[in-house]
Amino acid sequence: MLIEIDFSSDEAIYQQLCNQIILGIATSRFTDGEELPSVRQMADEIGINMHTVNKAYTVLKQEGFVKVDRRRGAFISVDDRNKERARTLVEKNLRVLLAEARCRKLTRSDIFALVEQICDEYGM
Amino acid sequence: MLIEIDFSSDEAIYQQLCNQIILGIATSRFTDGEELPSVRQMADEIGINMHTVNKAYTVLKQEGFVKVDRRRGAFISVDDRNKERARTLVEKNLRVLLAEARCRKLTRSDIFALVEQICDEYGM
Repeated sequence: MLIEIDFSSDEAIYQQLCNQIILGIATSRFTDGEELPSVRQMADEIGINMHTVNKAYTVLKQEGFVKVDRRRGAFISVDDRNKERARTLVEKNLRVLLAEARCRKLTRSDIFALVEQICDEYGM
Repeated sequence: MLIEIDFSSDEAIYQQLCNQIILGIATSRFTDGEELPSVRQMADEIGINMHTVNKAYTVLKQEGFVKVDRRRGAFISVDDRNKERARTLVEKNLRVLLAEARCRKLTRSDIFALVEQICDEYGM
């Protein structure tokens, strides 16, 4: 497992950890059912506080990317049952992101080029 | 100015306020140079704490969406000088968002349909 945290970033560390795990799932570096390191192990590995790892795992659990089993600990388990809910969530976030892009004078073709490139990378 | 805050949402209120203002700029509800209500006025209007409004204005200033003048207070002023930096930021966020979409089994055509719809709305 390769997790890269940018300690100079404005983004909260737990959020970075969540994002890295979600990116890992999308790019098939993490597979369904795969066990995540224990909170202590992950904290030691990347040199962060155990509370921060715990918060990331809790958020990932709430958002339906991991499950926690008392014996196995946290493991990847993507809840993709409710596609309409997923679409609504993605749409909401996309709306804010594209608003930012629009304010920064990115064009429609800038956006489509980016989306196309990333979809290709993810094999979508 | 119509700001809608969802008090039952998991999203921090200052973040919702930031997003609403960015959405307002993208959809031309707010125009360049337009003055925002004072911190106190905005806090009263939407029934939130002054600290929360202050935090939102500070973040918007840091991200280059508003400027603060000692006499005029906060006003809309979008920094669109550095397009490459903007593209890099949008790409980074898009990468996480599309990873989520991929995990939730949204397809390439789902994504393109959403992007197209929102670009149309924003007149991009």
